[in-house]
Amino acid sequence: MANLLIVHGGGPTAVINGSLYGAVMAAKADGTPAHIYGAIGGTEGVLNERFFDFKTCRSGRLETLLQTPGSAIGSSRTPLQNGDYEKMAEIFRKHDIRWVLLNGGNGTMDTCAKLAKACEGAGVSVVGIPKTIDNDIPFTDHAPGFGSAARYLAATVREITEDVRSLPIHVCVVEAMGRDAGWITAAAALAGQAPGEGPDLLYVPERPFSKERFLSDVERLYREKGEAVVVASEGLKDETGAPVVPPVFQVGRATYFGDVSAYLAELVIRELGVKARSEKPGLAGRASVAWQSDVDLREAVAAGAKAAEWALEGRTGVMVGLERESGKGYGVTFVPVDLSAGMLSARCLPDCYVNARGNGVTESFCAWCRPLLGEAFPDFFHLPHRAGGANL
Amino acid sequence: MANLLIVHGGGPTAVINGSLYGAVMAAKADGTPAHIYGAIGGTEGVLNERFFDFKTCRSGRLETLLQTPGSAIGSSRTPLQNGDYEKMAEIFRKHDIRWVLLNGGNGTMDTCAKLAKACEGAGVSVVGIPKTIDNDIPFTDHAPGFGSAARYLAATVREITEDVRSLPIHVCVVEAMGRDAGWITAAAALAGQAPGEGPDLLYVPERPFSKERFLSDVERLYREKGEAVVVASEGLKDETGAPVVPPVFQVGRATYFGDVSAYLAELVIRELGVKARSEKPGLAGRASVAWQSDVDLREAVAAGAKAAEWALEGRTGVMVGLERESGKGYGVTFVPVDLSAGMLSARCLPDCYVNARGNGVTESFCAWCRPLLGEAFPDFFHLPHRAGGANL
Repeated sequence: MANLLIVHGGGPTAVINGSLYGAVMAAKADGTPAHIYGAIGGTEGVLNERFFDFKTCRSGRLETLLQTPGSAIGSSRTPLQNGDYEKMAEIFRKHDIRWVLLNGGNGTMDTCAKLAKACEGAGVSVVGIPKTIDNDIPFTDHAPGFGSAARYLAATVREITEDVRSLPIHVCVVEAMGRDAGWITAAAALAGQAPGEGPDLLYVPERPFSKERFLSDVERLYREKGEAVVVASEGLKDETGAPVVPPVFQVGRATYFGDVSAYLAELVIRELGVKARSEKPGLAGRASVAWQSDVDLREAVAAGAKAAEWALEGRTGVMVGLERESGKGYGVTFVPVDLSAGMLSARCLPDCYVNARGNGVTESFCAWCRPLLGEAFPDFFHLPHRAGGANL
Repeated sequence: MANLLIVHGGGPTAVINGSLYGAVMAAKADGTPAHIYGAIGGTEGVLNERFFDFKTCRSGRLETLLQTPGSAIGSSRTPLQNGDYEKMAEIFRKHDIRWVLLNGGNGTMDTCAKLAKACEGAGVSVVGIPKTIDNDIPFTDHAPGFGSAARYLAATVREITEDVRSLPIHVCVVEAMGRDAGWITAAAALAGQAPGEGPDLLYVPERPFSKERFLSDVERLYREKGEAVVVASEGLKDETGAPVVPPVFQVGRATYFGDVSAYLAELVIRELGVKARSEKPGLAGRASVAWQSDVDLREAVAAGAKAAEWALEGRTGVMVGLERESGKGYGVTFVPVDLSAGMLSARCLPDCYVNARGNGVTESFCAWCRPLLGEAFPDFFHLPHRAGGANL
């Protein structure tokens, strides 16, 4: 009698429970595992031997995982100590766990590599399912979670833009998640599905942020059309590499920064004398079921199923990587990525995806990103002169 | 040959274009108006004689109004001067406009009353369609726009709560719109559709906010379950009536306040040493088509149609009021509200809707509000012990 275990790591996405569903259903269909456990509370849950058996759930109830945000089994960010890997290997032995799937970001994939090594020779397979909102995991075209975070931001910016353009004289700054990588911020460019839609300016953390260039960009748009919609990454840094937002205060060793969007809106008010506001959807952007990308959800489920399949075949120390198919139309295949390569580098936007002035993205980014957002947005009603992008 | 005109005023909602659709379709069905105009840019548009003729639109295209946020024709907040009413009456005469519908909040209903008076004896009917996100319009059970803003916040808080409860030790403060009235903030209580769901603490502007009581509430929850989800109105004031958020800076006569949610999150970090973050969806909450309430949209469309009907019958100086039907089940009837009564008072939450401690709402509020949010939220997958509301 042997069992399969799924463990979550790091922050959740809109589709991490989709990967969980895929893995559980694949394990059920395979029939080999006696129990299909989820660790309650990530690796902390493993160390405390807290498990939930998904075999007790009917299919109908399991399907609700597809529309549940957050992590249904709980996750953890607690760093593992050196002895913890051996401890977990012993817990696996104690509970007859032979197949282990870790679903998380860079840090969790690194944990996955170390755990696979600690389980070498013990007959335990350890496979990683990537998860991200930032799209910063290397060795994969993209990872589950990003497409939905991107769709959420693009859809939300698209709607906010309609609202802002209803009234004259207005600047709005929307803050996007992603402290080091601008993938989500960049996805806001896809808010523009028809002429006149979408944001005016995008600032990503890969380019040094200049207050002067920003104010100049906003001032020009304000003069031309009386408004500007700006999307800014929460992680903008200036030319020296320091965060653009002054620290709010220090608690111990941790510095707490204010919100980039609020800071930029205040800059506009103070320096240009123009009415401006800021929006920071924050966590809503990674918890939104309404704006899940159907493509992302499908890939998340399939990646979870693939991980279970590979573990049950005896593969270990690999992550389910997504490789984009070449040729007409969009599609992905799953490829095993050797985790011993080292997973702790964060992948940023390539330079060719950001425009020269550093306030927008290129069409090659849009072409790469568009399929990941899933189905087209519903059409809006626009008066004829809106097509030119002018304010009403 | 006589024409009908629709004018938007103030900020948009998720369903103001629904009222526009209802009015246009009713006017088309009636057949009397030769042209069905929308003023491009609110009363500013009227004064500049900028109109769009909806008779040029096919039905299929008009239907996209139902899924378009913002104001499709544009709105205005510019205060009207004394001579403007006579100017508009003259413009109506010039363009053969005999029926005028104004769709907006308190200020616009006041304008509607004044315009009706200025048009007395000229054979022009002026009727108001209420619009709000704050639910602050008097003499009506609720107004179109509120149900969707309420649904958006409840749904978003519900999702954010799942995310927050995925990881241990976390406080999250979500900011709700509504500077003077706590109706939207209160609606977040409906985020809890099953046991263990929903926010922990709600702070509305109708009750003086106490830093000490807030920190005590949060500290207790943190001790009990390691986390707290707080929803706070953007307009919280202390016992002296001053805004809780210190002014950021002054520009001329305007004082700019920071965000309440950011301020409260920083308080928690600094005073309790607990990790906390803030989310401020802001405009997304009134622009979201994904979270439109089906009840709200239906009522918005019907209210627009009713206004057109009454104007075409020759009624003037009235607003379409919504009266809740008594007896089993939920329903509304439309009643004409005499605008000369004075529309500039803002309606706040009755005291019986807020709990004694001032950190939540009562079941009688939930019973009043629930039907306005429309269909139930999709079920989430919860592990059995979540039903007790304990953190994972």
